[in-house]
Amino acid sequence: MAQQKKESLIITIAGGGSGYTPGLILTMIKQKEQFDISEIRLYDIDEVRNNDMGIIIKFLLMKHKSSIHLTITHNPQEAFEGADFIFSQIRAGGIEMREQDEKVPLKYGVTGQETCGLGGFSYGMRSMKSFLNMVESIQTYAQNAWILNYTNPESIIAESVRRRFPDIKIINACDMTIGIEELIANSFGYDRKQWMPDYYGLNHFGWYKSIYDASRNEDIMPEILNKIKEKGFVLEGLESSWAEAYKLMEMMINYFPEQIPNNYLEYYLFPNKVVEKTDPNYTRANRIMDTKLKKIKDTVAQIQNNPDLEAIDYETSVHGEYIVDMALAILNNKHDRFMLIVPNKGAIPNLRQDAVVEVPCYVNAKGVEPVSLRENIPDFHKGLMEAQVAAEKLLVDAFFENSYQKALQAFSLNQSVPNAEVAKKVLDEFIQVNGDQWVELN
Amino acid sequence: MAQQKKESLIITIAGGGSGYTPGLILTMIKQKEQFDISEIRLYDIDEVRNNDMGIIIKFLLMKHKSSIHLTITHNPQEAFEGADFIFSQIRAGGIEMREQDEKVPLKYGVTGQETCGLGGFSYGMRSMKSFLNMVESIQTYAQNAWILNYTNPESIIAESVRRRFPDIKIINACDMTIGIEELIANSFGYDRKQWMPDYYGLNHFGWYKSIYDASRNEDIMPEILNKIKEKGFVLEGLESSWAEAYKLMEMMINYFPEQIPNNYLEYYLFPNKVVEKTDPNYTRANRIMDTKLKKIKDTVAQIQNNPDLEAIDYETSVHGEYIVDMALAILNNKHDRFMLIVPNKGAIPNLRQDAVVEVPCYVNAKGVEPVSLRENIPDFHKGLMEAQVAAEKLLVDAFFENSYQKALQAFSLNQSVPNAEVAKKVLDEFIQVNGDQWVELN
Repeated sequence: MAQQKKESLIITIAGGGSGYTPGLILTMIKQKEQFDISEIRLYDIDEVRNNDMGIIIKFLLMKHKSSIHLTITHNPQEAFEGADFIFSQIRAGGIEMREQDEKVPLKYGVTGQETCGLGGFSYGMRSMKSFLNMVESIQTYAQNAWILNYTNPESIIAESVRRRFPDIKIINACDMTIGIEELIANSFGYDRKQWMPDYYGLNHFGWYKSIYDASRNEDIMPEILNKIKEKGFVLEGLESSWAEAYKLMEMMINYFPEQIPNNYLEYYLFPNKVVEKTDPNYTRANRIMDTKLKKIKDTVAQIQNNPDLEAIDYETSVHGEYIVDMALAILNNKHDRFMLIVPNKGAIPNLRQDAVVEVPCYVNAKGVEPVSLRENIPDFHKGLMEAQVAAEKLLVDAFFENSYQKALQAFSLNQSVPNAEVAKKVLDEFIQVNGDQWVELN
Repeated sequence: MAQQKKESLIITIAGGGSGYTPGLILTMIKQKEQFDISEIRLYDIDEVRNNDMGIIIKFLLMKHKSSIHLTITHNPQEAFEGADFIFSQIRAGGIEMREQDEKVPLKYGVTGQETCGLGGFSYGMRSMKSFLNMVESIQTYAQNAWILNYTNPESIIAESVRRRFPDIKIINACDMTIGIEELIANSFGYDRKQWMPDYYGLNHFGWYKSIYDASRNEDIMPEILNKIKEKGFVLEGLESSWAEAYKLMEMMINYFPEQIPNNYLEYYLFPNKVVEKTDPNYTRANRIMDTKLKKIKDTVAQIQNNPDLEAIDYETSVHGEYIVDMALAILNNKHDRFMLIVPNKGAIPNLRQDAVVEVPCYVNAKGVEPVSLRENIPDFHKGLMEAQVAAEKLLVDAFFENSYQKALQAFSLNQSVPNAEVAKKVLDEFIQVNGDQWVELN
């Protein structure tokens, strides 16, 4: 394999204030032999959070005796000029608007979730606006940079980017499948690094078709399905909301026992269960405020108040590893295999070809090469996906065309929504709540 | 145009006991100059209803001095042997099971309707069984007969027939679009006979794309849409359940003002409104028992008790006209235009090609020639239709494969259903209620 390793890279983390940043940077530090970085730039429009994170990252770099230069900025030119990679994890509207995405639909008995259902559509409308503006800056200041994007809701972002900037260097990635594979591997004692799973879907809306284990040279999905049905997942130690999500994943497998679904399908197949288990006054956004965001504040205070502090409570993460592995696959032309979000164009033969889908892909110096599944997907999955793809496309139409009608169609067609009347009520309230964080709809 | 008029036809009405039979036969009598019938056979497995209807039809033929021979039979050979046309309006399970189709879903807060939603799926499972058995008899005794089929739920019946008997002479027709066009024409003073509407959908699940008026040489749908929005339909004189359905049709146009929907879309877009307005203890089946079916009994008593009776209260019908016009289009190679239910195969370019769709078609001596819409349908309609087509295909799979899993997938994917849990509950109760009127599901 040709070595195209580049020296002294500049990495920009867009949404630098995110709680994912320490894990990501610790993974980069750990991989320093392969990943020669001269500068990391934290870019965030939220200056307070970006500065807080700057204090934490500065501490981590110092403790690891890293020579990487750290830049903290809310200026796009300073953030992007000359960058080699942009890792994007921006959250338009911040945690405060995530709270609204979750709580508004719940008022009407509909699942509120930041990436699925109508919460995801509210976030999508904000997120497209911010993300496309950012991509415009990146095109101005760093046209040759690779954007590794994991900004939610990913299918909607990917569709909007494809329309506005069809030729840019972007990889749309989501680590949820890694999370599912970790859960399975940890529950039943497998080594997921041996796996080559076949998976098809939209982002947060897909199914495993097979899980080929290279150490055994066979598809072990039937065996895994039996273990899930017999023993269930091992959920000890997981945060309660994740444990609940994986319990519903077991329920989905009980109902539809032929495939392993992405856990996010709970929002479409069992929205009633999700609403039942959700406290409309204390959603995941509130939990994150009280845990992850509080931890950032506490850690900053710790660092500032203790000049002799030796360590803080952040570690490398699966998430960080996923992003860094992708960058290394590009730099070193490694042909590594990831689940990525790409235009369909034949990858799933019997799904509309202009859909944005999540399938296994190879990543190398050229970018992304999707694997073609070659077989048609079953009608159940096709039916659900076609409806959801159409809903997502209508939302992107609504954004580009400033169309209230398209937004209403998108909201009504979303597979988590029981009728058009509730779709309209939620849409109308979201228009109020989001204000000019959405484009105007006429 | 070539005249291929055939003399002395034998017409079999399958489901002869239906309340639609008098209107159909009166239309045939009225058209006797064009439609030379030597024999009409009423075929029904319900002997009591068939005999009752026989008394009514005998009376009508006598009063109209018709020489048509009438046969009343529940024997398939007697019914079909040598027949030229079979008009099928069978109702598997009768009105008693229609009542169950309507009431079981309502127990779980889901719309119960005999052709849409889960009620339609319950009926579909019974109906496929009866209809395919009947088609087998027809193939044995009258291989050259044309079957003009309006047995509900039509999309499901059409899909199942296509799979089992791909090459038979069948036309699948539904008169609902005629009903909608009558409503519009009567409300606003048009002559619908001048119209060439473009319409696309599944049965009871479609939209008008345009309504070309030959007397004005233009598409008058924009004008009609404005009139509906400004004035609303004229609903005086309509049965209350129809008036309510057309009110919801106005609401659909208010929400989605670019197309005229089939009124049956209320079951998918506003199932909440339908459930609200439905009395779970007195559904349409009960109303039919108390009106149409009572009328048959009363009319039979009238005839039997009054030897001097001059007239009874039955008239020619739009429904009857529709069927007879179709038969005449075949017999006289007339190239008349009807909305029919046909395999897609390109008629709707961007919908799966193996769907069964409802589109304008020409009918002539050869049979059916669908009009290709040539333009893609919008994403909103495509998304809804793809999900519903997949659900219907899964139901037909469940029937042919005796698959509980496919039935559960069909029920869960049906666009009137809010979650898979309620889908399973309704399915399990329908399995009990239908007993051996369904195939066994494993």
